[in-house]
Amino acid sequence: MPELRKDPILGRWVIIATERAKRPSDFKPEPAPVSRGFCPFCEGNEDKTPPEIRAYRQPGSRGNGPDWRIRVVPNKFPALQIEGDLDNRGDGIYDMMNGIGAHEVIIETPKHEVSLTPLSDGHVAEVLEAYRERLMDLKKDPRLACGMIFKNVGTTAGASLEHTHSQLIVTPIVPKRVVEEMDGAKQFYNFRGRCIFCDMIKQELRSQTRIVVSSDHFVAFEPYAARFPFETWVLPKVHSSHFEDLTEPQRFDLAVVLKRTLGKIEKALQMPPYNYIIHSAPFIEPSMKHFHWHFEIIPRLTKMAGFEWGTGFYINPVPPEAAAQDLRDVR
Amino acid sequence: MPELRKDPILGRWVIIATERAKRPSDFKPEPAPVSRGFCPFCEGNEDKTPPEIRAYRQPGSRGNGPDWRIRVVPNKFPALQIEGDLDNRGDGIYDMMNGIGAHEVIIETPKHEVSLTPLSDGHVAEVLEAYRERLMDLKKDPRLACGMIFKNVGTTAGASLEHTHSQLIVTPIVPKRVVEEMDGAKQFYNFRGRCIFCDMIKQELRSQTRIVVSSDHFVAFEPYAARFPFETWVLPKVHSSHFEDLTEPQRFDLAVVLKRTLGKIEKALQMPPYNYIIHSAPFIEPSMKHFHWHFEIIPRLTKMAGFEWGTGFYINPVPPEAAAQDLRDVR
Repeated sequence: MPELRKDPILGRWVIIATERAKRPSDFKPEPAPVSRGFCPFCEGNEDKTPPEIRAYRQPGSRGNGPDWRIRVVPNKFPALQIEGDLDNRGDGIYDMMNGIGAHEVIIETPKHEVSLTPLSDGHVAEVLEAYRERLMDLKKDPRLACGMIFKNVGTTAGASLEHTHSQLIVTPIVPKRVVEEMDGAKQFYNFRGRCIFCDMIKQELRSQTRIVVSSDHFVAFEPYAARFPFETWVLPKVHSSHFEDLTEPQRFDLAVVLKRTLGKIEKALQMPPYNYIIHSAPFIEPSMKHFHWHFEIIPRLTKMAGFEWGTGFYINPVPPEAAAQDLRDVR
Repeated sequence: MPELRKDPILGRWVIIATERAKRPSDFKPEPAPVSRGFCPFCEGNEDKTPPEIRAYRQPGSRGNGPDWRIRVVPNKFPALQIEGDLDNRGDGIYDMMNGIGAHEVIIETPKHEVSLTPLSDGHVAEVLEAYRERLMDLKKDPRLACGMIFKNVGTTAGASLEHTHSQLIVTPIVPKRVVEEMDGAKQFYNFRGRCIFCDMIKQELRSQTRIVVSSDHFVAFEPYAARFPFETWVLPKVHSSHFEDLTEPQRFDLAVVLKRTLGKIEKALQMPPYNYIIHSAPFIEPSMKHFHWHFEIIPRLTKMAGFEWGTGFYINPVPPEAAAQDLRDVR
């Protein structure tokens, strides 16, 4: 019998479709993208991107030249623009705003790697530090409300270049989904006096059935109402609402947990396309007792069909307990 | 300068990304699916589907045999099951329900057509009548709250068979997105005393910039805050909250408008994969003054990336005014 499960934060229901149950090997790996030969993100091609905003470089090296470890550059085709004034207008019953914001690319290594996982733990920790620094910098701009760090891997997941990179979009309004997450968590907090994410972590660690990786500071698990096969969340064990408050010991630990989790997903599903996004409280909010920042990792194995688009109701053919078991089994 | 536009019903923002602007010809058509030779939906193969629930047949023909125009059968791999009792349980902080509901397939023609558009107007009107009849029938079941009719065309849009068909999923709860739509529309109604969809239709017919097709009873336009390139809505001009209240003159007119709209999309975008879904008020609600049923048609031309998944904030590279112009220009 299929099961309906409710996401405790958003109130969104998911169908765990036992009649359609799938094993990891049922998901065909995506054909490897044709390497286009030339990569603007590789070392030596620095002049093929817009000038860097920030770089982590060897001492003595020159900006926009070689000898860097991580570069942050503006997106060449930005969804939002940093220059201009905010302008909010109506048009009959409609509302619009001009597209002020930021859209940056974090190039994670000078070498042509297609994943974060071959990088050293220290290097991944520095990537996380780059995320943090860019958020801290953009947070100073009073026009901007919310910063979102995300990663697209594979063409199916929306990546146009294979060289490992992340993106940062900062918006002048708080996106609806972020508002809903805060509101759902707030409601639970008002009722129980506790953070719902902290409660989830406790319950997950107790039952162990959906745990993928657990370390001193972080835990990775399959959420109870996972929308997608092998959807995985990574959360700090100690309550914190803003990713940018990440401490140094947390940073190294997160680098290890993120690499292990992604490595397991890559091995179990043969380098699937995936997205991850950091859900963190908006810039404009102070530290919150009810919200808990986290990564959501979504392997792109199934196709969204009309039903999901129209209803926000997902059909997941892999129970999260089975997915967690498969990921734990990866050595 | 990119533009942020707000969906007046859901409060969801969309980026109209002028820097990424695309023309219809920039979207590569999907490779034609390999025809598998055997199709369980074709006439003569009636025993390859579960037994029919309803069929529109030639007088004197036998159930589950040939000589039909439209067949409705249970989905072979149903997401929800019709047998059983509703059972709502908790598991610590989580909630679940067993997967009671219906999942049916409407096979729209005995011939192996890959689209609705080659069917006659009368035939498409009968498909709409089949939708209506199935909804009316399932509405009698007190366990069921909401019926959703949708269509997946092309593998990218989630179709596993190319023979033209629609699906019906009926759920024991009202999906979140449907609740949000009702709530958004209700808020507008409480404030202005009018249906927001009726107001949209008026404003769209006045400005004409986003209109695709307009007839006696229906209008098709690109919504102001379209999430996707060439997203198109079809609405009845006279207020109505439930699709199943469709009258006979409306039905024929809708068949013509739907065929013309889909035909324009197919021609402008070279048979793109697409989904449509009928947004209609839940079974459990009486006739509503604030909600207005409609079709949402979504060509699947762009890939959802991490940003969209995480935020519910969409980046659309085609302004809806440009899309409407392109669709109007198709002869």
